[in-house]
Amino acid sequence: MPQPLTLFSDAFSISPYAMSCFVALEEKGLAYQLVKVGLHAGEHKLPSYKARTGRVPALQHGDFVLAESSAIAEYLEDAFPGPSHPRLFPEAVRERAIAREVMAWIRSDLMPLREERPTTSVFIQSVSRPLSEHARHCVRRLVAACEALIKPGQPTLFAHWCLADTDLALMLQRLASNGDELPRHLADYAAAQWKRPSVARWLAQPRSDYTPY
Amino acid sequence: MPQPLTLFSDAFSISPYAMSCFVALEEKGLAYQLVKVGLHAGEHKLPSYKARTGRVPALQHGDFVLAESSAIAEYLEDAFPGPSHPRLFPEAVRERAIAREVMAWIRSDLMPLREERPTTSVFIQSVSRPLSEHARHCVRRLVAACEALIKPGQPTLFAHWCLADTDLALMLQRLASNGDELPRHLADYAAAQWKRPSVARWLAQPRSDYTPY
Repeated sequence: MPQPLTLFSDAFSISPYAMSCFVALEEKGLAYQLVKVGLHAGEHKLPSYKARTGRVPALQHGDFVLAESSAIAEYLEDAFPGPSHPRLFPEAVRERAIAREVMAWIRSDLMPLREERPTTSVFIQSVSRPLSEHARHCVRRLVAACEALIKPGQPTLFAHWCLADTDLALMLQRLASNGDELPRHLADYAAAQWKRPSVARWLAQPRSDYTPY
Repeated sequence: MPQPLTLFSDAFSISPYAMSCFVALEEKGLAYQLVKVGLHAGEHKLPSYKARTGRVPALQHGDFVLAESSAIAEYLEDAFPGPSHPRLFPEAVRERAIAREVMAWIRSDLMPLREERPTTSVFIQSVSRPLSEHARHCVRRLVAACEALIKPGQPTLFAHWCLADTDLALMLQRLASNGDELPRHLADYAAAQWKRPSVARWLAQPRSDYTPY
């Protein structure tokens, strides 16, 4: 009998990292329970929350609990590998390396852009305040990196979809969703990613009771 | 003929991420060239610097250039795999997952601690200013996570060394090197990691011309 899988996600489905794990599970086609954790209510600080680092998202698989979205994606890939399960990462070593580079980069850089165009502006309510010079500098770096990876008409980073496509598309949606300027083909790429069934199911999560925290 | 390897590191060897890549290459026993990039002089912004994201460290392998230290470690593991090369990550899936969790966590959390005990305070000159309450909260979270993973007398996270040991030891050295309180067995763990030949070679890098930037 397979060990049950549980994803601990943020209550309002605004965490880009919870989204990445949700999409990973959906793409793998695995049965799992989705448990929403109220960060605004400090539910991640309760003893009942078992993640080693106390952070959300976390994955529980049997009695094994793991936090950090990138580690969760890699674990799902290792525990439910291709080709019998759909892959989350490219098979070719250098493409897999670039996917990991993109995922690590957008988790650790471009902070002014992430702050001025938070995920709430993508998922709940757009914002119109112009970007600061610091954020515009981030946009220039983001666009330069994307243009080296994505040519016009290219729907995914590599021949097949990978999880970095979802993560990168969210970074681009911070601009596209708010009417900020973006090269047409990058906006098209992000829009195409937004239509994937796994992503559409994330977008359809309820958020009407969102409470800023 | 093997493709040459080059690590682009920060000029003053204070980047914890450059350290991680340096140790990864040393542990793999690979021949490589070490190129120091003057971040203080903006050398990473020159067109000659080829990393997709413009960040340091980066690895060049033949004509393939990759940034982001965690992606670099995974690439080295994929391109020079065990058992013919020493492993950077545990072989068991769940141990490998925890190693990645630790590495992702210390790259994305505990910011007040990282700011008040920067790597310069570990590698160049200790600081004595007491930790703020925010930083002390980080210390409590760090210690709790470490105590769940490291028992007294335990020299490595798992049966064999892995790269997460080096990264975690540096986080603990931010405290130990500056005389901040730490459970004895965690200080011992960090001290033991500091004696590994690969780490000792990093510590021996010249830093006398350090210029704050």
